[in-house]
Amino acid sequence: MKSNAFERLVNNLSKLPGIGQKTAERLGFHMVKAELSYLEDLSRSILEVHNEIRLCMNCFNLSSTDPCCVCLNTSRDQSFLCVVENCQDLQSVEKTSTFHGCYHVLHGLISPLHGITPDDLKIKELLHRLQKKTVDEVILALNPNVEGEATSVYLTGLIKPLEIKLTRIAYGIPMGHSLEFTDQVTLRKAFEYRVLL
Amino acid sequence: MKSNAFERLVNNLSKLPGIGQKTAERLGFHMVKAELSYLEDLSRSILEVHNEIRLCMNCFNLSSTDPCCVCLNTSRDQSFLCVVENCQDLQSVEKTSTFHGCYHVLHGLISPLHGITPDDLKIKELLHRLQKKTVDEVILALNPNVEGEATSVYLTGLIKPLEIKLTRIAYGIPMGHSLEFTDQVTLRKAFEYRVLL
Repeated sequence: MKSNAFERLVNNLSKLPGIGQKTAERLGFHMVKAELSYLEDLSRSILEVHNEIRLCMNCFNLSSTDPCCVCLNTSRDQSFLCVVENCQDLQSVEKTSTFHGCYHVLHGLISPLHGITPDDLKIKELLHRLQKKTVDEVILALNPNVEGEATSVYLTGLIKPLEIKLTRIAYGIPMGHSLEFTDQVTLRKAFEYRVLL
Repeated sequence: MKSNAFERLVNNLSKLPGIGQKTAERLGFHMVKAELSYLEDLSRSILEVHNEIRLCMNCFNLSSTDPCCVCLNTSRDQSFLCVVENCQDLQSVEKTSTFHGCYHVLHGLISPLHGITPDDLKIKELLHRLQKKTVDEVILALNPNVEGEATSVYLTGLIKPLEIKLTRIAYGIPMGHSLEFTDQVTLRKAFEYRVLL
């Protein structure tokens, strides 16, 4: 189909993360046939979200308020600080309803390969928060991959001297999985971090 | 993140085909952090595409013109008609640059399970085109699945009596694949439709 509008739409869609040329075309074709009211609503909500949502200047969560609703919530324990890579991970932790402390969003992980250094992350801001001495425990909830490990090691080096309790979430066999199909690294970690019963 | 704008955006995005709740959230978070100029352009192109693109009333391809650029192209052989399920498939055929005839887009396949009957497709319009007696050969280029086969059988019953040459594209082992990892149905088809050398 020769159409500038369609090509521009597909081009814009393919800039989104995880959306390749093929998927962008499929979405584009869907939109062409979609109802105008839906397209107007979608189009409007894309712009609205940019106007309405900002960074919480305390924990760097995305929120429609600053401070965000987690930081504002007085029933949450300000002495527990969970460090996450991004807002998606924060939401995943929130959905479990097991953590009632506060968060600090790094907005990335250290990755020399991708040119991401500690200065690109909200690490200075984390240290600044910790220096207020209101935090009793920092829990690192970073993804167990190379970048997550590198960031954990780096943060450990910075936080340990502050004499604040520092923990990280457990690595091991996911619930419901079978040992047979668990990869070797995970199984090794599961043994290494076995728990006394 | 508690935000009506964000929830509305995620809700709208998750209505797109192949975009689930998780992916919609990921796209939403990306958009929140994206540059305003990009969001404006994306938002605009979603609306523009609806205004600019219509159905070609000859072949039912989506196009910014009616008739579409394929139908308007006088260098294309009007006596060859390739029947495809949708515009994506049409584009896939176009990209091969091997077919120089015209198209007819059905906009779906017969699927009793999904309540799609021949009346929901552009089959009446296909027969109307064929009755003009300008077409020498109809090539069915439908996906080799249950719905594609059902539609092929149905179309064969309608087109055969018109005494127009009717063919379908070849089923077999895809280029570059190995017999070892080809599924049994495909391998069986490959034998059934073997070619004399």
